Amino acid sequence: MSLAALFEAHKDTLDKALDACRTRSFFSPFVESPSSKIHGTDKVRAGKEAFEAHLGTSFDLEQPGTVGRTGFEVSPYTQEPLGIDYPRIDVDMMMEAASKAMQSFAHTTADERAGLCLEMAFAFDSHSFENAHATMHTAGQSYLMAFSGSGANAIDRGVEALAYAYKALKDVPTEAEWEKSFGATGVVKLKKTYRTVSRGVAAVICCATFPLWNAYPAIFANLMTGNPVVLKPHPNGILPVAIAVKKARDLLMQHDLDPNMVTMAADTRAEPITIDLLKHDAVQIIDYTGSQRFGTWIEDNFATKLVYTETAGCNGVVIESLKDVDDMLQGLANALCGFSAQMCTSPQNIHIPATGVKTPDGTLSYEDVRDLIVGKVQKNIATPRQCAGLCATIQADETLTLLSDVRAAAQKAGQVLLDSAPYEHPDFPKARTATPLIVEVPASDTSLYDQEHFGPISFIIKEETSEAALANAANMVRDHGAISSYAYSYDPDYLAAAQNAFADAGASLWCNMTGRMPINFAAAYSDYHVTGMNKAGNACLADLAFVASRFRIIQFREPI
Amino acid sequence: MSLAALFEAHKDTLDKALDACRTRSFFSPFVESPSSKIHGTDKVRAGKEAFEAHLGTSFDLEQPGTVGRTGFEVSPYTQEPLGIDYPRIDVDMMMEAASKAMQSFAHTTADERAGLCLEMAFAFDSHSFENAHATMHTAGQSYLMAFSGSGANAIDRGVEALAYAYKALKDVPTEAEWEKSFGATGVVKLKKTYRTVSRGVAAVICCATFPLWNAYPAIFANLMTGNPVVLKPHPNGILPVAIAVKKARDLLMQHDLDPNMVTMAADTRAEPITIDLLKHDAVQIIDYTGSQRFGTWIEDNFATKLVYTETAGCNGVVIESLKDVDDMLQGLANALCGFSAQMCTSPQNIHIPATGVKTPDGTLSYEDVRDLIVGKVQKNIATPRQCAGLCATIQADETLTLLSDVRAAAQKAGQVLLDSAPYEHPDFPKARTATPLIVEVPASDTSLYDQEHFGPISFIIKEETSEAALANAANMVRDHGAISSYAYSYDPDYLAAAQNAFADAGASLWCNMTGRMPINFAAAYSDYHVTGMNKAGNACLADLAFVASRFRIIQFREPI
Repeated sequence: MSLAALFEAHKDTLDKALDACRTRSFFSPFVESPSSKIHGTDKVRAGKEAFEAHLGTSFDLEQPGTVGRTGFEVSPYTQEPLGIDYPRIDVDMMMEAASKAMQSFAHTTADERAGLCLEMAFAFDSHSFENAHATMHTAGQSYLMAFSGSGANAIDRGVEALAYAYKALKDVPTEAEWEKSFGATGVVKLKKTYRTVSRGVAAVICCATFPLWNAYPAIFANLMTGNPVVLKPHPNGILPVAIAVKKARDLLMQHDLDPNMVTMAADTRAEPITIDLLKHDAVQIIDYTGSQRFGTWIEDNFATKLVYTETAGCNGVVIESLKDVDDMLQGLANALCGFSAQMCTSPQNIHIPATGVKTPDGTLSYEDVRDLIVGKVQKNIATPRQCAGLCATIQADETLTLLSDVRAAAQKAGQVLLDSAPYEHPDFPKARTATPLIVEVPASDTSLYDQEHFGPISFIIKEETSEAALANAANMVRDHGAISSYAYSYDPDYLAAAQNAFADAGASLWCNMTGRMPINFAAAYSDYHVTGMNKAGNACLADLAFVASRFRIIQFREPI
Repeated sequence: MSLAALFEAHKDTLDKALDACRTRSFFSPFVESPSSKIHGTDKVRAGKEAFEAHLGTSFDLEQPGTVGRTGFEVSPYTQEPLGIDYPRIDVDMMMEAASKAMQSFAHTTADERAGLCLEMAFAFDSHSFENAHATMHTAGQSYLMAFSGSGANAIDRGVEALAYAYKALKDVPTEAEWEKSFGATGVVKLKKTYRTVSRGVAAVICCATFPLWNAYPAIFANLMTGNPVVLKPHPNGILPVAIAVKKARDLLMQHDLDPNMVTMAADTRAEPITIDLLKHDAVQIIDYTGSQRFGTWIEDNFATKLVYTETAGCNGVVIESLKDVDDMLQGLANALCGFSAQMCTSPQNIHIPATGVKTPDGTLSYEDVRDLIVGKVQKNIATPRQCAGLCATIQADETLTLLSDVRAAAQKAGQVLLDSAPYEHPDFPKARTATPLIVEVPASDTSLYDQEHFGPISFIIKEETSEAALANAANMVRDHGAISSYAYSYDPDYLAAAQNAFADAGASLWCNMTGRMPINFAAAYSDYHVTGMNKAGNACLADLAFVASRFRIIQFREPI
């Protein structure tokens, strides 16, 4: 199918995506449930088999600049190496190939690119079962989360970025006639033509726990604007990225385009390649997802490159009053457990006034609310099967060390309300697991909670008043960043004050979320993910700012 | 009039501006000619008197953080000090006031800001006569150029930036309803609200020769997105900026808005303030116009601030064939003289093949074309009156030094085709003036022409072939940057190759421009000014990239 035909084939999806960006209503052309009732059992089985076929093999990815093999991934479920190796690349050679690809891709139009990228999005989706298992055994997510988090939900964010890029490109006309009177010489007419041009290679640094959720938006934002993409997976999250890269390259070749518009630069912890990649002159764009420390370093050190980061912060919760005690605290408890709080949107610091929390049935004491939260978490993880579905596994050994460290510190400064322990996964007896640790701290002891503790660690912070709770939570955001913040109040004045306080601190706020949905769910087309106004990142998925600088405009003019 | 009423009053202008940005056709609500036939003699006289009333006085500008007086401007026309002093400000105090203003301005809507800014645009325009004289006696432009260059043409670019900012802001809805099915729990409905928020103080660094042309776009791009503007005029270009700042502050106060949304930080060469301003934590945005060296330093050193630069480069001309010899070379000769080539769009390096230049009447030799250009320049400057209208004055003493230096170097490496000399200005006998210097150099002697020589200095470069001419000119752009480049050819293949070569080097190209209009005229709404792809600047007037990052989005959501 020609690129023009692909555009026609996917135009309806593109229009709906553009519409959803405008109305910010729900839209998805993909299915986020892996249910065999929807997909049939064949697809479900084939995906698992495709994943298993990778194990212990050399991943079949023909790439330029391959100078050996690399890769060492360990499954959080089996704690055994996956045994897959990938091309080890020479950065200079890969950059040369990517830059060459950019030249040949320059002549495609925005429509053609949209057709190609949407075809790619559906191609990615067709691998969602395979990628769900790949994501499970690298990131450690549950099967359900892995299916949607590396599938529909992630591809939706990709198509959203694609739509914004399309809109920004289309804002530039391809030609114009211009006429103006110049005094005595009369009217001058000029024909003007405009060409959108790419910036350079984009290095896309993916994270360990959601290997594709930020990768797809970066892939599509860059391909749409003509910039070749080099994906740098986390050393323990290569397989999901490799599956996507292979698919993208196959599709480019099918359409007689240079496959080096999408390449992968895999590495290992022992021999990291990221810095070499970022520093290369050909790299003009950096899309980074990962730790705040490294993200900040990148923001500080690449002044003349375009840098887009999504990192992490101290996500806070302020509880002033609860209209629906049970439902709201259930939602919070779920978020403390979900994927063992290894999400950039997981709440960590729960600020509760010592003066208690109002409810329609009277005031609950601080201790009541605290104990209700702990109780709901306990109930959530009552059985290994529940734990497996909700908490899944711990992505990295370091998180277990962190759990020990925080527990030790807590025993001095505060008290452990709910201790963490491994649970036995019903399907994977060797899985790396840990139930949530909940620590109570006085508000004054900020040193314990004024940073992100990545993993199933949360703090119940006793505040003097609801005003103090709000002020402290907002200050945490201002000083340390946040991606998702939460407030509970049915006092309109308090809620307005909370919104203003968080807005002033550069953060969005989710208010009175109940347990009817994951409170930290970030919806493509609707929720602007990351404000770019605090230390948790400088970019947003997705807005015009995410795409408008990724290309430039060259103009020609000539008298008619 | 309320802000809402201002919006209604100016909505038609805004719609036309938005439309012009889309169609890139001519539009201006302002008059670029200072003719008294259009404006009446009263306005013309009043403007001159208003300017003269400033001379030798303390400029009346009430500003926070004023800690004394500063300013030392010398008129290029009289070479006498203007004798005007301005507030000297304390950077910390001014930043505090600007940041406070930002808070109160946060609650205005995009519509209200558009109403205010358009009212401001017309207010600026109402001072165009006063500002024409102010620009003459600081920048040294001719009266005609100063009237349009600090008036209509500059304000047009401002309104263009305003329109782009409006479009980007309006791309974010203020609220949405969202509903999605979450499996067993059924459909969840959320109400979402979105707030666009400003980034911080914008330091706008203005240049000496066009004090307002880039300032107006920066003012409106920033005010529209809620960022307070601190204008830092060139030490010899304070008065035009001060007039605009006073007008802006008056208007803000009239509408009960904090005037500190627009302030001025004047300084002198002896006691510069720019670095302190740029480094201040409150400054989150830098809009810079000036030298490439300082612009590059800013681009390299403020990684975490938004930096928009327009600097300078080596503007080249390639002549392969001439369809209309007389008209085309006349256009080129005019541009070599216009404001003594002290414009960022003035051509400097003229590449001519030794093999000659085709015309419909046969081939002209290299020497023919060279001599025709020199002859037309000579004719342009035959009388002091012609010189005055076309060349005006030399803004800075340094340019006279540069002229001497280049002449001396040329006498060794090449030859002086047309020497520069002062001319006696008919109205201002003490004016600092210099006629154009034209130097012939062999293509191999790049050291003479591989940098911008700011002022009436141009090079006729003898190239082996037209291909060599193109390659050399494109390499100059790639290595040293360019804002406006020119090609002359009626061979479609050559022209296409030229467009591709310049595009690859990151430059736009004006083709076959004739003398019917100033060939280096950059039209608001139509010509994208600066590509941002070479060393002559990283930003463009105006595109979505110029505005989309100047604000961020904060979001709230709550179950319905």
